[in-house]
Amino acid sequence: MSAAIINGKQIAEEIKFKIKQETDHLKAERGITPGLAFILVGDNPASQSYVKMKEKGCNEVGFYSITEKLSGYVSEEIIIRLIEQLNNDPQIHGILTQLPLPSHIREDRILGAIDYRKDVDGFHPINAGRLLLGQPCFVPCTPLGVQELLIHSGNYPSGKHVVVVGRSHIVGKPLANLLMQKNERGNAIVTVVHSSVKDISLYTRQADILIVAIGSPEFITGEMVKKGGIVIDVGINRVKDNDAKIGYRITGDVHFQSVVNIASAITPVPGGVGPMTIAILLRNTLWAASRKIYSE
Amino acid sequence: MSAAIINGKQIAEEIKFKIKQETDHLKAERGITPGLAFILVGDNPASQSYVKMKEKGCNEVGFYSITEKLSGYVSEEIIIRLIEQLNNDPQIHGILTQLPLPSHIREDRILGAIDYRKDVDGFHPINAGRLLLGQPCFVPCTPLGVQELLIHSGNYPSGKHVVVVGRSHIVGKPLANLLMQKNERGNAIVTVVHSSVKDISLYTRQADILIVAIGSPEFITGEMVKKGGIVIDVGINRVKDNDAKIGYRITGDVHFQSVVNIASAITPVPGGVGPMTIAILLRNTLWAASRKIYSE
Repeated sequence: MSAAIINGKQIAEEIKFKIKQETDHLKAERGITPGLAFILVGDNPASQSYVKMKEKGCNEVGFYSITEKLSGYVSEEIIIRLIEQLNNDPQIHGILTQLPLPSHIREDRILGAIDYRKDVDGFHPINAGRLLLGQPCFVPCTPLGVQELLIHSGNYPSGKHVVVVGRSHIVGKPLANLLMQKNERGNAIVTVVHSSVKDISLYTRQADILIVAIGSPEFITGEMVKKGGIVIDVGINRVKDNDAKIGYRITGDVHFQSVVNIASAITPVPGGVGPMTIAILLRNTLWAASRKIYSE
Repeated sequence: MSAAIINGKQIAEEIKFKIKQETDHLKAERGITPGLAFILVGDNPASQSYVKMKEKGCNEVGFYSITEKLSGYVSEEIIIRLIEQLNNDPQIHGILTQLPLPSHIREDRILGAIDYRKDVDGFHPINAGRLLLGQPCFVPCTPLGVQELLIHSGNYPSGKHVVVVGRSHIVGKPLANLLMQKNERGNAIVTVVHSSVKDISLYTRQADILIVAIGSPEFITGEMVKKGGIVIDVGINRVKDNDAKIGYRITGDVHFQSVVNIASAITPVPGGVGPMTIAILLRNTLWAASRKIYSE
């Protein structure tokens, strides 16, 4: 039997539909248009394409958005000054610095400069800390998107053994913290493994829910997955492909072909976690504009 | 064969000896005496006894300390005002609010009011967030004490499967975050389980290092432990005992008698994690006074 495909694109569309409705309402009732500012440093093609997709999302739901493009040689001070301007701009409710930043820029300094109430990416230490502590906060978009995917597809993590492969600041660690919380959306048994673990399949094979965010194309194969497990593929890798028009194809961190016959449900790449990340970014921005998380 | 006993008391003494030396140095060279303020609300006997032990620790290493005792009926505003005074007091480098607080007081509001640079308990969201993100911060005393115990006893967590039983804000969650970090003191495969997990021994029996912080007397018994595993008992439970002079005895979360013949190393209660918690509190305070973590 072949696994059910978890359609992230469709679930994301449903979430965006609700965001659009609430945005119309927010405009009509309170005269507020959610505003999101993107900071794009340098000319990384993947970053450019991500920002473009996020801008498109803003248009779809009726947000105001601006993109500040900076040279790859810009100083930290210039970025900080820009962030301070955006922090003080009443039209802007969310600020997103597209990662990665050039190596001469200290990422933690930049992310820490964003007003935590406008930190719709959830990377400010205050939001990360409130996540760990189980307090209301802006949760990073991909981890929260994964949680929503699980819930919308009826695969509640509560009481399940969730194995997270990868421990990045952006996905693995916040996701582990999110799913181990004592609440009806979390409450999982959570294991975090990483690329330097010797016999990684010892852990992945135990997963009722396996979430892979390791950044390595088709790393997880069928024999590493529990029969009937649920597999969430967070990876977005560009792999050289001379047959493809653009010279590469997009693959996940999961070898779909071999896993689809073992798992009971699986997300595709593209069309799985990716669209959810954008939908959650928009929802976080709506919540920033409507002061749902932080009242002041 | 019987497990080696990890002598937390002795390791704590070694750490305190170094703190005393560095404190003498800090006084002589820079004229700074580390100062720690305790806030004790109500008359919980366990809290009173903990604060007394911490005050004693301060005396041993040559710190200045004060204890502000407040009635159990005090308002949040009064506590906040006291914290603001202490935040601005140049003689005070660390502020510790003894938990638990009475139920009418919002713990998160109180802990969030402490200047994060004086938050030697590591409970402020900024410190929790920096912990999750792997940035320098004040780490909660018990989790950091457990990590030090492991390292000082030669049981490095790197590459090991660490199973944490319990997911409190104070121990389980920060400990999991600490040990999963990509550095030579962490780098473990970490699983967090909790009391509502059905077959908890399925997980505890896999642990190369089992850390128990569930607040339930003698919860972990021999058959729940991996042969040759290392067992760290964070529990401090008062159990009624009519044979004891004081009417109770202190037990851990681990059934020592049955585990000592299965594990290769184990911490006793008392004399294991408890003394480490105090030693780390003192070290955090020294680091606050010498501005080791936060330079301003």
